[in-house]
Amino acid sequence: MRIVIVYGSDKAQAWRDAIAAHLRDAQVDIWHPGFTQQADYAVGWTPPPQFFIDQPRLRAFFSTGAGVEHVLNNPNLPADLPIVRVEDAGMGEQMVDYCRFEVLRWMQRRDEYAAQQAAGIWKPLSASFRDEWPIGVFGLGVLGRHVAKAFASDGYPVHAFSRSSTASEPGVRLFCEANGSDQFEAFMRATRVLMILAPLTAATYNKFDRKALQMLPRGACVINVARGGLIVDDALLELLDNGHLNGAALDVFHHEPLPRQHRYWNHPKVHITPHTAAVTPIRPAAKQIAEKIRQVASNQPTTGLVERRRGY
Amino acid sequence: MRIVIVYGSDKAQAWRDAIAAHLRDAQVDIWHPGFTQQADYAVGWTPPPQFFIDQPRLRAFFSTGAGVEHVLNNPNLPADLPIVRVEDAGMGEQMVDYCRFEVLRWMQRRDEYAAQQAAGIWKPLSASFRDEWPIGVFGLGVLGRHVAKAFASDGYPVHAFSRSSTASEPGVRLFCEANGSDQFEAFMRATRVLMILAPLTAATYNKFDRKALQMLPRGACVINVARGGLIVDDALLELLDNGHLNGAALDVFHHEPLPRQHRYWNHPKVHITPHTAAVTPIRPAAKQIAEKIRQVASNQPTTGLVERRRGY
Repeated sequence: MRIVIVYGSDKAQAWRDAIAAHLRDAQVDIWHPGFTQQADYAVGWTPPPQFFIDQPRLRAFFSTGAGVEHVLNNPNLPADLPIVRVEDAGMGEQMVDYCRFEVLRWMQRRDEYAAQQAAGIWKPLSASFRDEWPIGVFGLGVLGRHVAKAFASDGYPVHAFSRSSTASEPGVRLFCEANGSDQFEAFMRATRVLMILAPLTAATYNKFDRKALQMLPRGACVINVARGGLIVDDALLELLDNGHLNGAALDVFHHEPLPRQHRYWNHPKVHITPHTAAVTPIRPAAKQIAEKIRQVASNQPTTGLVERRRGY
Repeated sequence: MRIVIVYGSDKAQAWRDAIAAHLRDAQVDIWHPGFTQQADYAVGWTPPPQFFIDQPRLRAFFSTGAGVEHVLNNPNLPADLPIVRVEDAGMGEQMVDYCRFEVLRWMQRRDEYAAQQAAGIWKPLSASFRDEWPIGVFGLGVLGRHVAKAFASDGYPVHAFSRSSTASEPGVRLFCEANGSDQFEAFMRATRVLMILAPLTAATYNKFDRKALQMLPRGACVINVARGGLIVDDALLELLDNGHLNGAALDVFHHEPLPRQHRYWNHPKVHITPHTAAVTPIRPAAKQIAEKIRQVASNQPTTGLVERRRGY
């Protein structure tokens, strides 16, 4: 079996070694322009357009990230090539931790205390508690579910918005697109911290525009750990500026790296991180992908298969 | 039954009303200099020296905070007056949240990302995970136990240091003073984040001096949510300055408010809050104290009784 690694960063070698360690009977190479050997399976992230032209015999593409729009948007992606994405592999825990930090930052008024420390001011501020912070999780896939469960188990009121009504979760009130057009607004109105964890698709692109964000109650906060394309930046900035929203924690952006002149960089209510909320940990993810390759190679069922029609 | 509230802040009225709501057959007054009516029970925080002279008929004092050195240090405290302290009543959860925020700040390198944002730098930093952050909880009382359990259940390696060997907790490795003099050093050497949750007593005063703090591995961090008196400030500052320790989150200080000229205010590795890590929530705490008063009044056993000899 021949496997090719295609990776738009300096991690290609680490992925090659980790995959090879789990598939000792396979030949695992790193793709580069001019690489001509024909592989059966590809593992990677953001393959360049030329990649799929050079690799016409692929039987499946395995995405090392949970989001797959980087593959689906490739102009040369064969229409029938199965795409399989990594599932959790430690990212769920990181997403929980990222969101926890941000919720605690707002709940404990940490930015205000930091400002008081810088100004030499000793002044206790009134406290609030977990049950006063209703969490709204937008997207109830593997990662959204992980986050919703963690906050519900901590005693926060948690509700979630999901495309399909099949995805219920104990302790999480479910709002569902399939149940009516008023569900999204009801979900937003019940939310104090919006956590965006849905894939970027035609249906979610610019979903959080001015009208949608205005549905959040006054003083609400927004966390985006999914894809920048779900939020209309100008709308978010306007609602932060006019005081309707209280804060935003953003790990993802329409264009990455975030352009130098973007207002997010200097906005006092915006905290940004460079797409690091959940890093795919190579070893457990490589083990999972190797197992998926074995399943596909032996015509067994596997999970994480992308449905092209819905976009994830 | 007569109850007197003695409170060194503007919360006396709120405490009076909350206690009175739960003990409808009692007369509940607020103490002030010159107040002469004799009460059976006192509820409060930091009673002034005159208080115990004016109230010789007290049958018990109920502390609204978990720490009771503010009562024990009163020069006029009668030697045989029972002192009962509030237990948890929502403070455990707040302690967990305070510690979680600080651990995530260090684990997710949030101060570095904030500095990068301020400088307009987009640069992913290498990540670390929960299992790489061994937590050492010093003091396994009601609150320490709450914190140790929460971190253990999240998958952190957790160990604790306790005075007595009776206090075991599933998933928490126990180091115990009773088991030998090498236990404290072993506890410190195994710790990446030290969480101080022990009472201030003669035995814990200045416990964390230079020698003790140096036992922590290089790069360790310190959280103090107990009492400032447990740490030798100059030793902590020296080890932060020479790079042995990586950060400190301090909610409590030898003198509060923290004096304006103290180095903690401006130290880049020190985050301070004005003794707000766990605020006693008046309603649930008043309900608990009213129940304790009923128990003591009817000669039933109650919990939270302070042992003067050990100091908490």
